[in-house]
Amino acid sequence: MKTITKPDAMFKAVMAVKTKGKSVGFVPTMGALHEGHLSLIRRARKDNDIVVVSIFVNPAQFAPGEDLKKYPRPVSKDIALCRKAGVDFIFYPLPKDIYPQGFKTYVSVDDLSQVLCGRTRPGHFRGVATVVAKLLNVTQPDILYLGQKDAQQAIIIKRMAEDLNFPVKVRVMSTVREKNGLALSSRNAYLNKKEKEDALVLFKSLNLALLLIKGGLRDAGRLIKRVRELISKKKSAKIDYIAIVNAETLEPLNKIRGNCLIALAVRIGKTRLIDNVLLKV
Amino acid sequence: MKTITKPDAMFKAVMAVKTKGKSVGFVPTMGALHEGHLSLIRRARKDNDIVVVSIFVNPAQFAPGEDLKKYPRPVSKDIALCRKAGVDFIFYPLPKDIYPQGFKTYVSVDDLSQVLCGRTRPGHFRGVATVVAKLLNVTQPDILYLGQKDAQQAIIIKRMAEDLNFPVKVRVMSTVREKNGLALSSRNAYLNKKEKEDALVLFKSLNLALLLIKGGLRDAGRLIKRVRELISKKKSAKIDYIAIVNAETLEPLNKIRGNCLIALAVRIGKTRLIDNVLLKV
Repeated sequence: MKTITKPDAMFKAVMAVKTKGKSVGFVPTMGALHEGHLSLIRRARKDNDIVVVSIFVNPAQFAPGEDLKKYPRPVSKDIALCRKAGVDFIFYPLPKDIYPQGFKTYVSVDDLSQVLCGRTRPGHFRGVATVVAKLLNVTQPDILYLGQKDAQQAIIIKRMAEDLNFPVKVRVMSTVREKNGLALSSRNAYLNKKEKEDALVLFKSLNLALLLIKGGLRDAGRLIKRVRELISKKKSAKIDYIAIVNAETLEPLNKIRGNCLIALAVRIGKTRLIDNVLLKV
Repeated sequence: MKTITKPDAMFKAVMAVKTKGKSVGFVPTMGALHEGHLSLIRRARKDNDIVVVSIFVNPAQFAPGEDLKKYPRPVSKDIALCRKAGVDFIFYPLPKDIYPQGFKTYVSVDDLSQVLCGRTRPGHFRGVATVVAKLLNVTQPDILYLGQKDAQQAIIIKRMAEDLNFPVKVRVMSTVREKNGLALSSRNAYLNKKEKEDALVLFKSLNLALLLIKGGLRDAGRLIKRVRELISKKKSAKIDYIAIVNAETLEPLNKIRGNCLIALAVRIGKTRLIDNVLLKV
């Protein structure tokens, strides 16, 4: 396994293997790797000759006042995990390698970026789309692996890659959860014991929604009301949004029908957590 | 020579030659080819194994009320010119191949896009940057050829390709002019005989600027005033802008110094023409 910091060197390294006809799988991460990331890496390992993992806490996707500084960066642990998982290249650039002085170009995905998490995190998805466009050019993957936990991110990146004709397949892998249902997230590290228990309400509320839909409920407003009631019972929980939307366009649904995404963002104490479930009605 | 209309087919065709180790030169055009375009094609022919020319009148770079509909489209003549110039592939897509339903992604180059032509053509450079990002992914060139006549466009595309890590060299070729100095442009076809004569004032005013600088003038305001006076003598001329800016950042200069771009846009009758000159002071 080789760790590379400079974009040009990374590009050369992948091209050296690609010109030999080898396939490249790419897993972009912000580090603080957990089983969710590792499930992507393992799938990439299975599908491709070469696996590239990027570790980059992307300043462009943090709004002012968000947790850019305190975001966990356990780099040597991450590197060890990558080595164990059979990664070939870690791309580990500095912010100045990605956004050198004079940088002025941004990639935006209209409509999809202003809703859900985009509403409370202005500029977030522009930062995501921009860095992924750059990383695709640097790592030249055949397949890009993303996690379903960040549902909106996955939808936006798929749209961006298709719209800009990036020659890459996008594979979205299921959310990995703790046994109790809590979706794995690097931000779970911010939670204390009590908060970690309270955080289970996200998974529980998604299950409630599924149960209600299974029972025949089709009115989105009523569904959201029931979920809101459940979450509101937790004193530490502050709801950012609860939404049920079309799984491709992210447009809100009145009637629950077709490919739906139920997505929510809830603050538990100071930590903002997200979770979601896809379903076909 | 092969003409291809679908992005996927175009990508496959270039990859088939690239995997044999051949180099690709790419010339993006809106058709209505003239000696300016042909100078790019000839240079691409000289530098590369394979030459790709795109012909696409890009709706995204025309503001409402601009000349999208009447823009000349002499396609069979263009194809004949490409064949004669030894082009290997013409990429000739329909708007729906480039902007299919649900398209939502745009590439913007901040600061550089809001000045000069960007001031009177809102959204223009976003459209340019977006389509070129797409075309780079579709045609996978080693070298991209652009004309100096569209100076701001060349600067923006260079910035975009570098910022987004597109693995491409950008080569900007000198403006080709008629014997009398008029910069070649597909829009010259809109001019009647009298207007074509009046249009010479653009070239003449750039020459006046060069002469004044050679004579020691360093005050940008005074230079612009002199140029404005000269152009204003033509009754058919309506000045959009006259600017002297840093050739990389496009920031306006007070004192003429370093790498400068003198750029102007002038309406002759109903036709908006641009011209420019680069100089090092």
